[in-house]
Amino acid sequence: MTSDAASYTSSLEFDPRIFSADVKCNRAHTTMLQEEGIISQETAHAITGSLDELEEKGISALDLDPSVEDIHMAVENYVTSRIGEKAGFMHTAKSRNDQVATDLRISLKEEIEEIMGDLLNFIQNTVDMAEENLETVMVGYTHLQHAQPTTFAHHLLSYAQALKRDYQRLGDAYKRVDLCPLGAAALTTTSFPINRQRTAQLLGFSHVLENSLDAVSSRDFITETVSALAIMGVNLSRICEELIIWSTYEFGLVEIGDEYSSTSSIMPQKKNPDVAEVARAKAISLQGELVTILSVTKALPQSYNRDLQEVTPHLWRAVDTARDTLNLVAEMLASVKFNHQRGLELASSNFSTATELADLMVRENQLPFRVAHQIVGRLVSTALEEGLNPDLIDSQFIDQISQEVTGEALHIKEELVEKALNPLEVVKSREVPGGPAPTMVREGILNLKNWMEKQIRS
Amino acid sequence: MTSDAASYTSSLEFDPRIFSADVKCNRAHTTMLQEEGIISQETAHAITGSLDELEEKGISALDLDPSVEDIHMAVENYVTSRIGEKAGFMHTAKSRNDQVATDLRISLKEEIEEIMGDLLNFIQNTVDMAEENLETVMVGYTHLQHAQPTTFAHHLLSYAQALKRDYQRLGDAYKRVDLCPLGAAALTTTSFPINRQRTAQLLGFSHVLENSLDAVSSRDFITETVSALAIMGVNLSRICEELIIWSTYEFGLVEIGDEYSSTSSIMPQKKNPDVAEVARAKAISLQGELVTILSVTKALPQSYNRDLQEVTPHLWRAVDTARDTLNLVAEMLASVKFNHQRGLELASSNFSTATELADLMVRENQLPFRVAHQIVGRLVSTALEEGLNPDLIDSQFIDQISQEVTGEALHIKEELVEKALNPLEVVKSREVPGGPAPTMVREGILNLKNWMEKQIRS
Amino acid sequence: MTSDAASYTSSLEFDPRIFSADVKCNRAHTTMLQEEGIISQETAHAITGSLDELEEKGISALDLDPSVEDIHMAVENYVTSRIGEKAGFMHTAKSRNDQVATDLRISLKEEIEEIMGDLLNFIQNTVDMAEENLETVMVGYTHLQHAQPTTFAHHLLSYAQALKRDYQRLGDAYKRVDLCPLGAAALTTTSFPINRQRTAQLLGFSHVLENSLDAVSSRDFITETVSALAIMGVNLSRICEELIIWSTYEFGLVEIGDEYSSTSSIMPQKKNPDVAEVARAKAISLQGELVTILSVTKALPQSYNRDLQEVTPHLWRAVDTARDTLNLVAEMLASVKFNHQRGLELASSNFSTATELADLMVRENQLPFRVAHQIVGRLVSTALEEGLNPDLIDSQFIDQISQEVTGEALHIKEELVEKALNPLEVVKSREVPGGPAPTMVREGILNLKNWMEKQIRS
Amino acid sequence: MTSDAASYTSSLEFDPRIFSADVKCNRAHTTMLQEEGIISQETAHAITGSLDELEEKGISALDLDPSVEDIHMAVENYVTSRIGEKAGFMHTAKSRNDQVATDLRISLKEEIEEIMGDLLNFIQNTVDMAEENLETVMVGYTHLQHAQPTTFAHHLLSYAQALKRDYQRLGDAYKRVDLCPLGAAALTTTSFPINRQRTAQLLGFSHVLENSLDAVSSRDFITETVSALAIMGVNLSRICEELIIWSTYEFGLVEIGDEYSSTSSIMPQKKNPDVAEVARAKAISLQGELVTILSVTKALPQSYNRDLQEVTPHLWRAVDTARDTLNLVAEMLASVKFNHQRGLELASSNFSTATELADLMVRENQLPFRVAHQIVGRLVSTALEEGLNPDLIDSQFIDQISQEVTGEALHIKEELVEKALNPLEVVKSREVPGGPAPTMVREGILNLKNWMEKQIRS
Repeated sequence: MTSDAASYTSSLEFDPRIFSADVKCNRAHTTMLQEEGIISQETAHAITGSLDELEEKGISALDLDPSVEDIHMAVENYVTSRIGEKAGFMHTAKSRNDQVATDLRISLKEEIEEIMGDLLNFIQNTVDMAEENLETVMVGYTHLQHAQPTTFAHHLLSYAQALKRDYQRLGDAYKRVDLCPLGAAALTTTSFPINRQRTAQLLGFSHVLENSLDAVSSRDFITETVSALAIMGVNLSRICEELIIWSTYEFGLVEIGDEYSSTSSIMPQKKNPDVAEVARAKAISLQGELVTILSVTKALPQSYNRDLQEVTPHLWRAVDTARDTLNLVAEMLASVKFNHQRGLELASSNFSTATELADLMVRENQLPFRVAHQIVGRLVSTALEEGLNPDLIDSQFIDQISQEVTGEALHIKEELVEKALNPLEVVKSREVPGGPAPTMVREGILNLKNWMEKQIRS
Repeated sequence: MTSDAASYTSSLEFDPRIFSADVKCNRAHTTMLQEEGIISQETAHAITGSLDELEEKGISALDLDPSVEDIHMAVENYVTSRIGEKAGFMHTAKSRNDQVATDLRISLKEEIEEIMGDLLNFIQNTVDMAEENLETVMVGYTHLQHAQPTTFAHHLLSYAQALKRDYQRLGDAYKRVDLCPLGAAALTTTSFPINRQRTAQLLGFSHVLENSLDAVSSRDFITETVSALAIMGVNLSRICEELIIWSTYEFGLVEIGDEYSSTSSIMPQKKNPDVAEVARAKAISLQGELVTILSVTKALPQSYNRDLQEVTPHLWRAVDTARDTLNLVAEMLASVKFNHQRGLELASSNFSTATELADLMVRENQLPFRVAHQIVGRLVSTALEEGLNPDLIDSQFIDQISQEVTGEALHIKEELVEKALNPLEVVKSREVPGGPAPTMVREGILNLKNWMEKQIRS
Repeated sequence: MTSDAASYTSSLEFDPRIFSADVKCNRAHTTMLQEEGIISQETAHAITGSLDELEEKGISALDLDPSVEDIHMAVENYVTSRIGEKAGFMHTAKSRNDQVATDLRISLKEEIEEIMGDLLNFIQNTVDMAEENLETVMVGYTHLQHAQPTTFAHHLLSYAQALKRDYQRLGDAYKRVDLCPLGAAALTTTSFPINRQRTAQLLGFSHVLENSLDAVSSRDFITETVSALAIMGVNLSRICEELIIWSTYEFGLVEIGDEYSSTSSIMPQKKNPDVAEVARAKAISLQGELVTILSVTKALPQSYNRDLQEVTPHLWRAVDTARDTLNLVAEMLASVKFNHQRGLELASSNFSTATELADLMVRENQLPFRVAHQIVGRLVSTALEEGLNPDLIDSQFIDQISQEVTGEALHIKEELVEKALNPLEVVKSREVPGGPAPTMVREGILNLKNWMEKQIRS
Repeated sequence: MTSDAASYTSSLEFDPRIFSADVKCNRAHTTMLQEEGIISQETAHAITGSLDELEEKGISALDLDPSVEDIHMAVENYVTSRIGEKAGFMHTAKSRNDQVATDLRISLKEEIEEIMGDLLNFIQNTVDMAEENLETVMVGYTHLQHAQPTTFAHHLLSYAQALKRDYQRLGDAYKRVDLCPLGAAALTTTSFPINRQRTAQLLGFSHVLENSLDAVSSRDFITETVSALAIMGVNLSRICEELIIWSTYEFGLVEIGDEYSSTSSIMPQKKNPDVAEVARAKAISLQGELVTILSVTKALPQSYNRDLQEVTPHLWRAVDTARDTLNLVAEMLASVKFNHQRGLELASSNFSTATELADLMVRENQLPFRVAHQIVGRLVSTALEEGLNPDLIDSQFIDQISQEVTGEALHIKEELVEKALNPLEVVKSREVPGGPAPTMVREGILNLKNWMEKQIRS
């Protein structure tokens, strides 16, 4: 190969990610070969001895000159430099095709475990914040327009639930990463009597990835993992978007911590939500990595084609971006201060309690829905025209409108009207599981805590 | 709205997909409302009666005029036309936001079940074909170059294993589709004392989707399903690619059935693999639908935004394309005739048994790997220069080469040499689980059959 | 083919898009064949006569039974039904491979022309709105935080400029659509002495697409067009996003026309920006179509492969979605009412004039930048602490702060201070080409008008 | 910011790409400020002097400590360290928002120019190879099945034509990169009387990017460039695919140079097309970068949002990958040896001349198409059944078949039959512009050479 071609096709940039796995893989394979009597104990000990040594010294002990093709060769070269030609016996009944697939899976398992741990931390933070905001009223939006009163705690739990599914999705992907391809050799196994169960066990895999051609051909474990990360990315981008909008001068609902913002020397009141913006962008870049992986693997013949090598950089980029983004968004969210007064002000000012008022008429006066809606609609527009705030609406005003619409008064008790128009009271009345009533949010928190405990124990 | 705007924002094109679910959803909700004493028995009966009637008549009973906003309105209009204003009571404590999310999940569950069934059929076909081809020798490729002998059966099982993972992935996605958002109402539940567990149960959901804001905001169940389908699409595109290449004049390995090819009146010997080509393309279009869904949901604030409506068409397109492609590829593959003679010819002609010969030297003569490789490398190039086919290589020729390389002869038994160079014998020697030896492929088939039986029973 | 396979591989769903082009194409080819003496005048007249007839009757005259493979066969069948076997002569020196490529290009040229016209209309609307808002002050945002005062007119011109580039991009793509592949036949032209220049001319193409293999293989003209549309989609999505945010209760900057919003019977004050939301989603779905087209054409061997057929539906979906979205966003934007009072209020309330104040110190007092920034920073934070609005800042207050910071007073003239803190005055001072000063916006409008006129004339 | 947040949001990894542009940009701006009398000559000289110094020393002279926010600060710090506080005057009437946009455009222009040069080289190579293969017969495929005879030269020109469009596309994108945003400042220009035309001229831009909000908001010049590269990627992937398939044992049409292949010590006859495989994958990864850029910019409000920073890494990755892939594929293709004998063998063996035979009957006997097709179809299938190669077909055999089909003999001259069945003769008869006849290919080469000369001169 020309040096351009060698450098173009080299995998060395990302190989350090699998260095540790590669050493482990060689050691487990050598151990099995010796146990099955395929290589001598002496050879095996010499090999595993120098692998132990290499593991201790770390990757810097390797010669990663560009002329060395990949990490597998570099490890072999190291062992050969230690014990001579018999180093080659560690390749008995093994090929780079099954080895790289095994290395990737070992390393990816660790990465997924770490991200799953980070997700639990994020959920824990969110739950902690929710606990402190059970009665922090805010308006809930649909179409970014005021809809109904809710609480910041209730809103936070919606984040936690989405992240919980991200956790489960990664856990499911993990099951299909946790399969050992070792022993598939180049693509048809080997005529040496190897023991695939044993290497799988030594390497901590739950199962063997059975068919040997499939074992070296398949990268769907990568695509699935990156899919799960990309979906998590979308969930994170939504949190970022809300924080960016809520921290505008106009909304004024939250203040992101200084450590996650940038300021201007000239406009000290201006805090730019830089972390949220960068995270919103990086989160969605996972989608690009996913697209590349899907396209690279499109229409590839089975078995090893060198294209597969090009999947790996996109995996590691996705993993790093996902983990960093997850953790930064978690920290940033934890830094947020919610403006209680502004939350209540917005919830109180624009008739977000209208639905509750109509429900009240349905409940108390057995009015059909459309009629109740009609009365409340007229009431709200009249109030807005006359500049009446929701807290000035009373039973008498309702009857006046009702008579215009239906010819009849409703005579609803004043205290019921007041309750229906008070955002906090409305929130408290939403006592349905999953609803914003503080009792329900407390239940939601408890459910999440129990679930988290189960994950940590398992 | 202008009529252009109304038609631009209308969901009616894809609403028929959720018609049946919408009727079910209204019925279950009404039943619960009555059970909990929120609406009267009489009203409930009137509503469910006309829903039953509508279900029987089917969607054609609805007025789907463009002026009707969506299927939910059309169903309500129908019930109103039957029982008058009290139809409105079926909307007590319900909103289009939670209803559409519920409808989508009900319908998608059915679609996933169907595709999972189709996947089992495909795997069954593949296993059946494999059973008939246990000793059908072919060369296995890496980099599309001859690598080692294998069998068509072994190759087929690699397809089956990939499809098995597709099945599992869909099954895992299903768990997150199978959650009931009903009762979330617009976004904060309701002050009516509804029973969410009960409606979930009546609708056949395994669990309630707890947080009400999350319930109306989240579409990750769709993204995950389409991801799983897109990954399946890649797997199918790989099968198509192989069939297209294998059915060229040059490879001549397979003949695709006439029902899945097109021919030319002028070149009757030419069979174009049209189904495989179209499937290769359609399979990868799932990726486009996935990208759209990820991008549409990027950075959306929580709760319902009308953007979410635009996710649905891409879901249904993905579902239809995936199912059709899966089934056509299954049928096409079943129609394939493998050319046994050509398979053996290719496996025998280009020293794909070289690895086995080297392994033999390692095993019989305890040669280090690099030395064995060196000898075999020299042997193959000498043979090719002299025009010797693999079946003309004997122990004596090996010794001649060996002496050139190492100065020593190997004296390998003639029968061992013959075995090492005979593709079928080499295949038979790969007696490692997951390998191509007929014994192992039979075991692989058995494992798949047991697994399939378990799926069908569950 | 099985009927499933036939329907799976059928192109009939989207063939109506090329019906008219197909007729034109057959007619031009027949005319050329006759002119070159390849077919007789009589045959040619019979063929073109029935093609004229068909064109007049329209596509409904065709038998588009699923058993008919595609539109080309349907057209041939029609002509055969009219003039018998000699209809076949219109296929002399022509193949479906070059014909479908030609048809697609003819149809796409018309679609692009239409969208380019729509873009000019959009730009015209935007310019018209800008003309009426030259002094409509608003705050300009960076990071969605207040930055500097500007005008609605200036903001609108930023839309117009982006759309102008979309127009140019489509125009450039058009050049590569406007190449005639006809005469390439199946892939190697023909031994008949055809005249490719002549058919290209008859069909209104600017040039012949020379190499015959390239002519039937390439679909990059489609990918490029859809890329241009996808980029336009991003530009449109940004406009939608701004209108959605600006029409929140909190921003209150604009009111989208009722015809492009939905309302609620119960909350009449709530106007949901449905068109903007749907458009934001549809605009980005163009990206999905683009991805599919790139992936389908990835790694296809040259010449016609049936995969190419699957590119077409994604083209037409992209074209339709792009055009509809463009026009709806244009209409919606035209319906927007800007709230002048709120615009001024926001521009005046949060020291978005701070930069100008610092520039003033640099200009008047030759202060180095950092020093000016330091003074203004201290001034703004002091003012905010003391609850002073920008209009209460005077030269004396500045000097007080300046002395704290530098030990020296600045003695800036009161009228200069006032001007620097008055948003409209600041805007007027931005008299740099492309800036928000009304003079400059007027110049920008003029430039756009001149450019538009040139486009229309050409 | 926390150090995690600082490193997460840092742009320093990719900032070196714009170092040189940033220095140029500062210098041009300073020069203009001085020319317009906005800063003093002395200050201007001090600034430009230290910028010259910095340019000479290179980026290593900068302190790129992570605590430094970005390259702009680092450059400013350098100048400050040289000339003290007055360094700040180079920021008069300039902001990082317009500066980064300008820097990106300057750098990208150079990159595009380089890639366009590389494309011309590739085309030149292709044309050179074509010139040497004017009569190198091969079979042309459709659906990867034998279709009609052509030449390697003709095939090569189809590559050249696709690359020519890639060149033109980049050239068109270049026009929209070549616009100068400098002077837009943060987003509304400035009240200093700057001269935007002058800085644009000093920096070698063709035009000013007019509207100042658009100038800092828009990144469509990046999306368009990456689109053009992604389309080029697809074209390159198709070349790779063909080389991979053609270099299989089964096709045996080409041999890729050793410098672009990998070999196996044990199977020396096996040459793996590693560069082609890696290139096939890398070429399609451009699509992933494009998707990320489209998604990141989706629905961003106008002006600068920090998300825009995240577009840049994907641009540079796309640029590097595109250029490297382009050049490696060019070199690899140049290394290819075409197997003339195999090319002729395949073109001669499977009746790829059938179309010509039918055309002959249409021409010589005025047979309608369908009839000629019917005769040839029967002839080919009979010949294949009887094991007759195309070179054994003669006029008598044709008449025998013709009589079976139509009852009449055709009496075609023997030499015409021979010519129609001889692949090289068939190729020579395709004397239509763009066709494979050596005369036509020579013309195609000439056209390309003339076009290239024009590009180089311009």
